[in-house]
Formats: sequence, structure tokens, C-alpha cells
Amino acid sequence: MTSPITDRRHRSGGARSRAAILDAATRLASTRGLDRLSIGELADEVGISKSGLYAHFGSKEELQLATIDAAEAIFNRVVIAPSDAARPGMAAVLALCDAFLDHLRDKVFPGGCFFACASAEMHARPGPVKDRIAEFDGRWRGRFKRHLETARSDGDLPADEDLDALVFDLDALLYYAHGAFSFRDDPAVLEQARHAVRRRLRAA
Amino acid sequence: MTSPITDRRHRSGGARSRAAILDAATRLASTRGLDRLSIGELADEVGISKSGLYAHFGSKEELQLATIDAAEAIFNRVVIAPSDAARPGMAAVLALCDAFLDHLRDKVFPGGCFFACASAEMHARPGPVKDRIAEFDGRWRGRFKRHLETARSDGDLPADEDLDALVFDLDALLYYAHGAFSFRDDPAVLEQARHAVRRRLRAA
Repeated sequence: MTSPITDRRHRSGGARSRAAILDAATRLASTRGLDRLSIGELADEVGISKSGLYAHFGSKEELQLATIDAAEAIFNRVVIAPSDAARPGMAAVLALCDAFLDHLRDKVFPGGCFFACASAEMHARPGPVKDRIAEFDGRWRGRFKRHLETARSDGDLPADEDLDALVFDLDALLYYAHGAFSFRDDPAVLEQARHAVRRRLRAA
Repeated sequence: MTSPITDRRHRSGGARSRAAILDAATRLASTRGLDRLSIGELADEVGISKSGLYAHFGSKEELQLATIDAAEAIFNRVVIAPSDAARPGMAAVLALCDAFLDHLRDKVFPGGCFFACASAEMHARPGPVKDRIAEFDGRWRGRFKRHLETARSDGDLPADEDLDALVFDLDALLYYAHGAFSFRDDPAVLEQARHAVRRRLRAA
């Protein structure tokens, strides 16, 4: 599968757009961390001058926030869009889980889940960057909750099912799949996670 | 509850032992990362000279390995020991899970689970440090597996229970508890995890 992050070697050597810079930034941030996203190192990586990069991003924090937004756009395209194409409710829940595991398998972000990496890195640093990650996290879990509510209305879950507990367990399985797969690099982890998700939904 | 990591302010200003250096190193590494554990910064933190620190650790890698060993000694005392005191089998599984969640609640390591932080940081860096973390991870999951085997022999789990799947799910819940609690700093996360562990064991 072609990576949805454009490979910079395929771009012309001349004008580097803001988008090209952010492509490189999402890759760098998911392996080395958002905090190491210095203007200087990124300029080296993209092959433009620091002053050229400053023309796009006035500060490191502005660059970090733009990088998170760029990563979310990729995540939406790769992980969220397939669930939007599925029937709302249980089918969409499974589509979300599967697309998330696929995006780990395909190394859409070289470090695994961009947002799991970013949240681990920024957990102890309150501020606009952590807030932006928390907003993403809220949207992510909210999406699961809404689809599970639909599934319950459809009769695919018991009327008294604790949906917060179900979101907790599903999110845990996906988060762990990120951690264990990125550490062990063993595709069996992703298959275990796929089975675990289905087992958890059957148990509900 | 008193932190099991000795507070350096309670030590005399003079001779800093290897143990005192490693106390500081486990704290620093769990918040700032093993890779940022430079001899220079640690010397500043502990309040000794770089040459004094070099007398204990010849290289950054040696310091990282010693820090991991020191963290495991703390982890063994705080998380493993209570399960050793419990009856082998299901009681020990619950004791392990509860002690792990307690050690998050008590911020034994300021960054949460030392080994979850370290594995996230080192996942893409093969070498002796990653190997040491992987050995810990193998021991951790092996311990769960052995206790679950005992629980199955005791009749506390069905004879055909898939123990690898059960270890996967329990480890996922604990790993997620680390990630979500360190990011959201909400004790409700730990209670949700405690319930999730019991729900998963009941479903088995």
C-alpha cells in the first residue's frame, strides 16, 4: 500500500510548500517526537533554509500545532473515512478498529499511531499542544461512543450495556496494539488485537 | 503514601552513592526519557561532578542499563511483591493488576509506568537498551501467563480458555491505564481499569 504521506523524493527540488514541510514534520514527529521538531532540523530534512521555514511557521509551537493538524488530516483520510463509508453503528465500530489496525500495519506514520506517540510525549506538558491532542482524543472516543449508541438503538447491543466501559476496552486494545506492534514489530500483535476487538464486542 | 524512590533531599549533601544517582536517574528517565539521560544533566540533578558520575558509569548506555535495572528493582518491590504474597493463580493475577494500578495512582515513577515509557521511547532503536526492556516485558507477561495457568488448573478458568488472549487483554488494560492516566491525570481512569480487569476475568 502506498503511504498516504507524500514521499519528499517525489517532489521537485525547488519550491517546498507548507504541505511538503508538514509531510516531513508528521514523519519526524512520530519517530523523534514533537518536541524535537526544531525549525533547524526540519529545515535540514526538507532541504530549505531556516528563514524559508520561518516564513511558514513563526514559532516552534505554531509548527507543532500545524503538524498535529496535518497528522489529523492524514488520520481522518486513512482511519476515519472508511468508517464514514460503513453503516453507522456496529459496522462503523468494526470499520474504525480495522482501519486503525491497518494504518499501524501499513506504517502510515513510521512511529505507529501519531496521537499515541504525541500524547505519551506531551502528557506532562500542559499548554496549547497538549490541549490540541486532548481535543483529538475526545473526538476519537466520542466517535466510538456515538456509533455504539447507534448499535444499541439498533438492538446490536443490550439496552443496559455500559458504553463508557466498552469505549474504554476498545480504545485500550487499539492503544496497546500501537504500543506492542511498534515495540515488537510482530504482525501477530495486530491479528491478536483484531480478534480481541471482536471478542469484546461479542461479550457485550 | 511515601514514594519508594528515595527523595534526594533526605540524603546528606556529601557522598552520593551509585544508588542515589540511580534514584534520580529513574525519576528523570520516566519523565524526560532514557535518551535524555545525559551524564551532564544527571550530574547537575544529583549535584555531583561529571567526573564523579563517570566513576560510576563509563558510558551513557551503561547508565541507561543500570537505570533500567534500578527501575525494575523498584517495580519488583512495589508491583510484583504483593502478588508473590498472594495465593498463586487468580488471586495473584488480581494482586498484580491492582498493585500495578496502585503504583500509577501513587506516581511511584513520575511519568507513570517506567517500562511503558521506556518501550515507547526505544521502540525504533535496536540495541542492548531495547533488549533489556524486551526482557522485562517478557518476564512481565510470562508472570501473568503462569498465574493464569495455575488459575486454569485450579478450575478458576475454563479448561479451553485461550490464555494468550487473556494475557493480551489484561496487559492492554494496564498499558492503557498508564497512558490515559498519565495524559488525563484523572483517577477515574484507574477505577475504570480496575473494573475492566474484573469484567475481563469474569468473561473468561
